[in-house]
Amino acid sequence: MPSPSRKRVILLGATGSIGESTLRVIRAHRDRLELVGVAAHHNAEKLFAICREFGVRHAALGDASVKASAPPGITLHRGPEGLNILATLPEADTVLVAIVGTTALQPTLAALAAKKTIALASKEILVLAGKLVMAAAHASGSRLLPVDSEHNAVFQCLEGHRTADVRRLVLTASGGAFRDWPIEKLAQVTPADALQHPTWAMGPKITVDSATLANKGLELIEAQWLFGLRAEQCQAVLHAQSIVHCLVEFTDGSMLAQLCPPSMTFPIQHALLYPERAAAGTDTALSLDKIFSLDFRPAEATRYPCLRLAQEAMAAGGTAPAVFNAANEVAVAAFLQSRVPFLAIPRIIEHTLATVKLIEPTTLDQILAVDAEARVTATHFTNQP
Amino acid sequence: MPSPSRKRVILLGATGSIGESTLRVIRAHRDRLELVGVAAHHNAEKLFAICREFGVRHAALGDASVKASAPPGITLHRGPEGLNILATLPEADTVLVAIVGTTALQPTLAALAAKKTIALASKEILVLAGKLVMAAAHASGSRLLPVDSEHNAVFQCLEGHRTADVRRLVLTASGGAFRDWPIEKLAQVTPADALQHPTWAMGPKITVDSATLANKGLELIEAQWLFGLRAEQCQAVLHAQSIVHCLVEFTDGSMLAQLCPPSMTFPIQHALLYPERAAAGTDTALSLDKIFSLDFRPAEATRYPCLRLAQEAMAAGGTAPAVFNAANEVAVAAFLQSRVPFLAIPRIIEHTLATVKLIEPTTLDQILAVDAEARVTATHFTNQP
Repeated sequence: MPSPSRKRVILLGATGSIGESTLRVIRAHRDRLELVGVAAHHNAEKLFAICREFGVRHAALGDASVKASAPPGITLHRGPEGLNILATLPEADTVLVAIVGTTALQPTLAALAAKKTIALASKEILVLAGKLVMAAAHASGSRLLPVDSEHNAVFQCLEGHRTADVRRLVLTASGGAFRDWPIEKLAQVTPADALQHPTWAMGPKITVDSATLANKGLELIEAQWLFGLRAEQCQAVLHAQSIVHCLVEFTDGSMLAQLCPPSMTFPIQHALLYPERAAAGTDTALSLDKIFSLDFRPAEATRYPCLRLAQEAMAAGGTAPAVFNAANEVAVAAFLQSRVPFLAIPRIIEHTLATVKLIEPTTLDQILAVDAEARVTATHFTNQP
Repeated sequence: MPSPSRKRVILLGATGSIGESTLRVIRAHRDRLELVGVAAHHNAEKLFAICREFGVRHAALGDASVKASAPPGITLHRGPEGLNILATLPEADTVLVAIVGTTALQPTLAALAAKKTIALASKEILVLAGKLVMAAAHASGSRLLPVDSEHNAVFQCLEGHRTADVRRLVLTASGGAFRDWPIEKLAQVTPADALQHPTWAMGPKITVDSATLANKGLELIEAQWLFGLRAEQCQAVLHAQSIVHCLVEFTDGSMLAQLCPPSMTFPIQHALLYPERAAAGTDTALSLDKIFSLDFRPAEATRYPCLRLAQEAMAAGGTAPAVFNAANEVAVAAFLQSRVPFLAIPRIIEHTLATVKLIEPTTLDQILAVDAEARVTATHFTNQP
C-alpha cells in the first residue's frame, strides 16, 4: 500500500535530462513521491527500464510509429492521444511536464482540465500559449509550479509577498560560451564552440540558446505569464557562477534572491514536494565554508541581440513570442548543421518576426498555425543563398 | 485631520543615528507615516527641533536631570517613567525602539503590554531579556518587527515560509576595519584604527564591535529569539560589500537572501510600513546596470574570538548573553579610552563569562542585577595592572 501522504507523479519526458534529474529526486524521496506514469518520445527501452525500477504501470510513447510492445504489467499508450490519457490518469496528483516542443501543449491543457497540479519544465507551453494555459489553470483552480531553476527561484522569492509590490524580476544568465569572447570573433563561432557551456550540462539546442541568450529571452516571456507582470518588469543579468537564479526587486528597493548550486534537482524537488520541503536536498547545498564570489554584469545588447528580440516579442505580445521561438528553433538547427553562421541566428529571427503577421490567438489551432508559418518563413530565409 | 491610513509612530532614540534615518523615512513618506512622540537621552534642543518640524506634541528626555523647559504646545515627559508614558501613548500604533543600553527594556515591555507594534532597533532588549520580551509579545499579541538590517532581511526572507523548514540563518558581517590586517598586527590596533569602518557610518562603540564581530555575535543572539531557532542554526559569514544582509538556508538546500544598499532607511521603511511597501525607497535601490561582485568568506576563529564567545554565550543561554554584552561594553569603553589594548577585549569578556554565575532569570530585576555584576567584574579585571 502506498503511504497516503505520498504525491503521485506523472512524468512527461522521462528519458531526457530533466526526466533523469526528476528520477534522481524521486529515488531520494520515495517516502514522499511515487511515480505512477511515464512518457517519452520514442526511447521505449529506457522508458520500460524506468517502469521496472519504479513499479510504474502506465507508459506512453509520443511517437506512435515506434514498434515496441509493453512488457507484462505495463499498459503502453501511444501518440498524442496516448500522452493525453497519461496526463489525466485518475491516480495522479501532479504532472511534471518536461516534453520539449509543441507536443507538450495538448497534454498540459488536458491535465489542467483534469485538475492536476502542473510542475512545468517545458518552455514552449507558456511562450506559445501563455494566455490560454494561464486561463485554463485559473478556470480549473490548478496550480502551475515552475521547475525551471530561474522561475522556481522567483516562485520561492514571491511566497508571502505581493506581486503588486514587485518592481522587477531579474533572471540570471550564465552568459553562455561566448560571454568573454571579443564580439568581433562571434562571426567565426562553430557549433563545437557553442556547445561548451560554462556551468550547465544540457542538450545542444538549449546550449546554443544559452550562448545567444535566446534561452533567457524565452524564460522572461514565461516569467511574465507565470507571475502576471508587464514585459518591461522582466529583465536579465549575467551571473557567471549560476548560483543566484533570480533577483526580485520590490518597489521599496529591497531585493530577494534565491541561491543554490547549479543542479536541476533543487527546483524539481521544490516543485514536487511543494508546499512541504524535505529534510535534505537530493544534491549537496552551497557551502559557505570557503571563499566565494558572485559576479554580476549587464547583458550587452551588441553581444546578445537575441535577448533584445525576445524582449521586443514579449512587449508586442500575441503570437510574437511563438514566432520568436519557432524562428529561433529553425535558426539554431541550421547553425548546428553548419548551414548558417552563428550571427545568422538573430537575423533569421528578426526577419521572421518582421514577416509573420501578429495576431491575438484564441485557440491552440491558431497558435500552431502561426508556429508552422513561422517555421516555413524562417526556413525559407535560412535557405536563401 | 491625519489620514486614517497613516501609521502613528513613536520614536524612542530620535537624536541618534537610527533616529535620524527614521526621520528621513518619515519625511519621505508623510502620506503614510505620522510622528506622534519622540524621546532622546539628553539632547533637548535637537528633540524640540524635531517636534517643531514634525508637529509632534509629546516628547521625553530619559535623563531627568537635564534642565530644559518644553516650548509651547509640547508636553515634556522626563526620566524612566517619562519614557514609559511616551511608549504607551494611546494615539500611537507603532513604537520604534532605538535607545541603546538597558534603558530600552522598561519602555519596550510597557509598549508591548499596551499592545503597540514594536519596531526593534535596540540590540540589548533581546540579548538581555529575549525570553521575557518574546513572552510579553506573545501574551499581548503584539508584533516585533526587526529594524536591524540583518534581522529585517531575515524577516523578509521568512515571510511565507515556515521556520520548521529552516536549516540555518547566516547573517553577513562586513568584517570591520581589520578584516584584511595580518593577525599579528592586531595587538597594535589603536582606537583611531578601529573607527575606520569599511561600509557603515556608525557610532564608536558599534564600530569597534564591528571590528571584533562582537556586534555580529549580539545579532545572532537576537536572531535566535526573533525567529525561534536553536543556537547552532545562527551563523555569520564575512561579506565585504554589505549588500547581502542575510542568507536563509532551508532544509532542502535552497537559500533565500535579501539585498539592498547599506543604508538603514531600507529596513526602517520596511518595518514602519509593514505589511505594505511604498512605491519608492527613501534611498536609491541597487543598480544592476554595471559590473559588481558579492564576496563571501568564513569569519576566521583566530581573527574574531569575540564571535566565538558570543556563540558560546548563546548556546549556554540564561544570563550568559547579558554577561557577554555587559563585559563587551566595559571592554570596548576601556579600549576607546586607551586603557587596554584591542586584544584585551575578548580576554575581558572571556574572564567575565567564566566568573559571573549563570542563572535562568525570570524577572527584569534579576537580569539588571546580573548586568550590573558583570560590569563590576569586567571593570575590576580591566583595571588590573
